[in-house]
Amino acid sequence: MQIAFVLYDGFTALDITGPHDVLNALPHTEPVFVAEQAGPVANESRSLSLVADRSLAEVTSPEIVVVPGGLGTRALLEHEPLLSWLREVHETTTWTTSVCTGSLLLAAAGLLDGVRATTHWLAREQLAALGAEVVAERVVEDGRIMTGAGVSSGIDMALTLVKRMYGEEAAEAVQLGIEYDPAPPVDSGSPDRARPEIVAAVTTIFQASEKEFVASVTAA
Amino acid sequence: MQIAFVLYDGFTALDITGPHDVLNALPHTEPVFVAEQAGPVANESRSLSLVADRSLAEVTSPEIVVVPGGLGTRALLEHEPLLSWLREVHETTTWTTSVCTGSLLLAAAGLLDGVRATTHWLAREQLAALGAEVVAERVVEDGRIMTGAGVSSGIDMALTLVKRMYGEEAAEAVQLGIEYDPAPPVDSGSPDRARPEIVAAVTTIFQASEKEFVASVTAA
Repeated sequence: MQIAFVLYDGFTALDITGPHDVLNALPHTEPVFVAEQAGPVANESRSLSLVADRSLAEVTSPEIVVVPGGLGTRALLEHEPLLSWLREVHETTTWTTSVCTGSLLLAAAGLLDGVRATTHWLAREQLAALGAEVVAERVVEDGRIMTGAGVSSGIDMALTLVKRMYGEEAAEAVQLGIEYDPAPPVDSGSPDRARPEIVAAVTTIFQASEKEFVASVTAA
Repeated sequence: MQIAFVLYDGFTALDITGPHDVLNALPHTEPVFVAEQAGPVANESRSLSLVADRSLAEVTSPEIVVVPGGLGTRALLEHEPLLSWLREVHETTTWTTSVCTGSLLLAAAGLLDGVRATTHWLAREQLAALGAEVVAERVVEDGRIMTGAGVSSGIDMALTLVKRMYGEEAAEAVQLGIEYDPAPPVDSGSPDRARPEIVAAVTTIFQASEKEFVASVTAA
């Protein structure tokens, strides 16, 4: 089972490695990291690079596609090489999935028109504007499309995928293997539960980061 | 604040990207991926490569060190280039940390003698044999050393570090930023709660993977 993990300039590392480490625990998988061109691809803060094994052109019929989010998504909403590839492979995938703002790319490719989907809480309006029926849940399934909310939700999204494909015991085994027994030291994981001043601060920081990232790629 | 993320042949991706995406959200950080030699470093299943920016020799006084786990740890328990480096940088770090079986490397370097520490549930005996006082908790702090349990615990470990260094509000902001609001679709994250047959299956799979990995590096 070939699983295409999509990379692009400005992805978020945990968005893609979370699902990878979950799905890669399954037997008989062939994970492949794919980007417009093969080679190292930098994350949104240019603090790490993951290597793309193959170019988009070399991966034509993956059974699962995982599209991570990241500040880089905003520069790709009209970027046909990636959007056309997503449209084409989606015709034959078993599952097309995304994490965080990766769903903006699925939507920009036209795959989420009227489809129930989620994204990072700060990008919900943007996702709705791109045609999706936005649902404020952590993992959302609609037909062959499964989307996860912000960053760390990719772990839950991928475990949900394992459960749907291979059953409860398989999901339990993978969860135990990665010892996914969350115990955050604070309780502020969603905008509904976080203190208003924390929500405001994070909103400000993200908007500034987005502006800075867009400026950096425009200048390049 | 320089944060050294250590890479070696056979690391686990989520072990290192979890803490990275948490710590990298802080202002004024200088993350650096470091390995014996700079360049791409393959994970334990050879399914992805992260790029090391610098060699160990080039990073001499990081303020934080994060050592991931992975099947590759077993081949490094007497590997002086890495162990000496860990000993040397630990003299001046503010925090020396590990995730999963990364603590085996800290222990092999002599940094956990009589120190309270944790690891992946399948490696607890091995960690005790290396001199640590093993505690079956998700995040364990002892002096300047903080260790996390298996794989995904790196997220909780790093959030705990943020809380200790910058306070509760900072940890809350980072948690909200990565939308860490876990909702696993099954409840099997620890060996205490998982069904015995799942514990047995995962134990068998890990032992086989370990054997296979060791054989592959020995053959290379």
